[in-house]
Amino acid sequence: MNPSSEFSHLDASGAARMVDVGHKLAQRRVARAEGRVRCQPETITALRERALPKGDVLTVAKIAAIQAAKRTDELIPLCHSLPIDAVEVEFSVEDDAVCVRASVSTTAKTGVEMEALTAVSVAALTIYDMCKAVDKTMVIEGIRVTEKIKE
Amino acid sequence: MNPSSEFSHLDASGAARMVDVGHKLAQRRVARAEGRVRCQPETITALRERALPKGDVLTVAKIAAIQAAKRTDELIPLCHSLPIDAVEVEFSVEDDAVCVRASVSTTAKTGVEMEALTAVSVAALTIYDMCKAVDKTMVIEGIRVTEKIKE
Amino acid sequence: MNPSSEFSHLDASGAARMVDVGHKLAQRRVARAEGRVRCQPETITALRERALPKGDVLTVAKIAAIQAAKRTDELIPLCHSLPIDAVEVEFSVEDDAVCVRASVSTTAKTGVEMEALTAVSVAALTIYDMCKAVDKTMVIEGIRVTEKIKE
Amino acid sequence: MNPSSEFSHLDASGAARMVDVGHKLAQRRVARAEGRVRCQPETITALRERALPKGDVLTVAKIAAIQAAKRTDELIPLCHSLPIDAVEVEFSVEDDAVCVRASVSTTAKTGVEMEALTAVSVAALTIYDMCKAVDKTMVIEGIRVTEKIKE
Amino acid sequence: MNPSSEFSHLDASGAARMVDVGHKLAQRRVARAEGRVRCQPETITALRERALPKGDVLTVAKIAAIQAAKRTDELIPLCHSLPIDAVEVEFSVEDDAVCVRASVSTTAKTGVEMEALTAVSVAALTIYDMCKAVDKTMVIEGIRVTEKIKE
Amino acid sequence: MNPSSEFSHLDASGAARMVDVGHKLAQRRVARAEGRVRCQPETITALRERALPKGDVLTVAKIAAIQAAKRTDELIPLCHSLPIDAVEVEFSVEDDAVCVRASVSTTAKTGVEMEALTAVSVAALTIYDMCKAVDKTMVIEGIRVTEKIKE
Repeated sequence: MNPSSEFSHLDASGAARMVDVGHKLAQRRVARAEGRVRCQPETITALRERALPKGDVLTVAKIAAIQAAKRTDELIPLCHSLPIDAVEVEFSVEDDAVCVRASVSTTAKTGVEMEALTAVSVAALTIYDMCKAVDKTMVIEGIRVTEKIKE
Repeated sequence: MNPSSEFSHLDASGAARMVDVGHKLAQRRVARAEGRVRCQPETITALRERALPKGDVLTVAKIAAIQAAKRTDELIPLCHSLPIDAVEVEFSVEDDAVCVRASVSTTAKTGVEMEALTAVSVAALTIYDMCKAVDKTMVIEGIRVTEKIKE
Repeated sequence: MNPSSEFSHLDASGAARMVDVGHKLAQRRVARAEGRVRCQPETITALRERALPKGDVLTVAKIAAIQAAKRTDELIPLCHSLPIDAVEVEFSVEDDAVCVRASVSTTAKTGVEMEALTAVSVAALTIYDMCKAVDKTMVIEGIRVTEKIKE
Repeated sequence: MNPSSEFSHLDASGAARMVDVGHKLAQRRVARAEGRVRCQPETITALRERALPKGDVLTVAKIAAIQAAKRTDELIPLCHSLPIDAVEVEFSVEDDAVCVRASVSTTAKTGVEMEALTAVSVAALTIYDMCKAVDKTMVIEGIRVTEKIKE
Repeated sequence: MNPSSEFSHLDASGAARMVDVGHKLAQRRVARAEGRVRCQPETITALRERALPKGDVLTVAKIAAIQAAKRTDELIPLCHSLPIDAVEVEFSVEDDAVCVRASVSTTAKTGVEMEALTAVSVAALTIYDMCKAVDKTMVIEGIRVTEKIKE
Repeated sequence: MNPSSEFSHLDASGAARMVDVGHKLAQRRVARAEGRVRCQPETITALRERALPKGDVLTVAKIAAIQAAKRTDELIPLCHSLPIDAVEVEFSVEDDAVCVRASVSTTAKTGVEMEALTAVSVAALTIYDMCKAVDKTMVIEGIRVTEKIKE
């Protein structure tokens, strides 16, 4: 088995490398990811009473996610700079968690699952930042890719 | 109950705001966080055989984490720019997960738990990126603050 | 008259330079600035009906302003990197304009009027961006410093 | 009337969103914008005597404008990252103002008026920064799009 | 002789400008560059004994080079933002120097020699940073383009 | 001999690390560096005739150097973010080279030689970029620290 065919970011000696996408075709690609910030039910109650009506907490997290998705190549060293067509971010507030779902689309030579995961991660970190004064027990969980489409 | 005393990033109307740290004292502060990339046992076996001897996967993730910690204020909108004294990142490879632990220290007017969480998140995303060609089932989990010290 | 004592960013020959702030004292400093996006009254009506109730337009502009203020030294070549204590951004919606007011504070060796002006400028550009599909006549106006305080 | 067809950056509920440009055609697009820094006539006289012969003030402002145009997507949250073909920046010095004109061109799926406005705004801020030691009365004015072309 | 046909970044008056690449064809382009950090033979001996077996010094330099290549347009004011297909970085350790070779490829309207030179320069600076505690005599030398290909 | 006391950026196992500067004293520190772009004498002649009178080439290089010095911590992974007091950049044009000298000062817990070297490197790259259309033989050489002061 050829190691480099498995770990695309490693060459035959195990050294890190950027994949050459030069001969791949630019195609419409979409990736979706999700994750959640698990917190105390009292934190959700406080959010519903004081923060969610105004809407700022989730809007700030959405903007942070969109900005981070556009800069994924600066954060993840071996990622390519891709021209993102759109980023969508949605939240659902459950009894003991705020769930984040992001969808990123591009017309490029390689996929955008890292961009979708980065959007979810940074949205979760931003929610954590805004709630950390009221809840010291929060955990960011379940960050995963839920769908990858090549049209 | 005064909402703004609870959600420090929200004013009395629920609108987002940056906390004014102008009258706080600069102190040595340390924060530690952890998280993990859960993956297939076969992925760990492949990492141990091909990627870990050379060491690049974990070194790339460590560098990404350090770089991200220094730019936390660009990623999380309401965070302050803090002069980071040090970032330490450690990994432990378990049977079905790569665990990440980060410790960030500063001498500043506010704490660095967001910097530690950002370091862990970006290390986890970088590991995910380097393993995604061999494992489509990975999940980033358990990102939490484990310690916060003010000296 | 010594030219360099007038244009602080120019040396005696007229060449651009960064001012050396090394021997100045770190002090609490605040700067306030304002500006506005002048638009059609119909645009204000549409904003009031559809965009302002949800609040996203102004929250997005506020976040953009805070983020830009923190990066003023990357935008304005001869500015120093300053540790910003707080950025406050407020909007008022008039009959034919959205007004922006920003206040930036620091504890540093030099003032933050460029940070306040940058916050106002980027807030105005972000409002422009979000309204440009409905109004082709907008003008950004009256960007000025309104107050500068050294405590 | 469908609100989302009006405010392209807002969905039907009034929430902010990034426009999906995935199915639009990449075309040559040019946008021109202008603005000015209004100042005391004495400031213009001083600029003409000491700063303009060397030329640095306007060159620094031009470079700041070009650099900012390339990073518009980092400053304006809902803007796309576009491959800019060229940025041109010109200045004219009037009796009580320095005027800035910028032209930005791209071959992309969406237009570059925000890039042209950002170039003008940052050029104006940079001029303000370099003259603020001699003139406390400056105002940045009249920032507007003057032309938008799709070839 | 027309000056602007010689110095492509200067207009007929000698003023700096960004070249308009709008009407050029996107093509596969590759550029290679090299350079070296000359140091004491004892530094090389120490590197071979303590640093090179673990590999981190060269991996950190490689990651820094790849990250810098992707941001060349932020560092070099008149460079275009190009979609980089791949960056390869290799090192060879000689008796009194560490040599760096970088190859950058794109499919774009203009070449990537500045990206290759930036990758080499930042790799060399990173090696310098990691060895500066043991060797105060290092010099970065011989940074040049070795090949430029248009397919 | 303890390796970690030699390579300050490596721990006892040879792994890369950021040095903890938390218990060091903030002091005024200055570092100076130099380097040069060696080119054909004809290139210098052309620069003197067409580019240097207007001055833009060297001003653009100076601005690029100042901007890069402020972002050294983003380029060199293990560098700390330091509050730079001033950056000075000077050029001298010789018969077959453009020489660059940079001086960077800070009041911080660690020195700024990497900032001075980064300023010189990016000034040299910017000059290279602006002359590359007329000279394919340029080499960037002799980048070294010339002085390091702790007051």
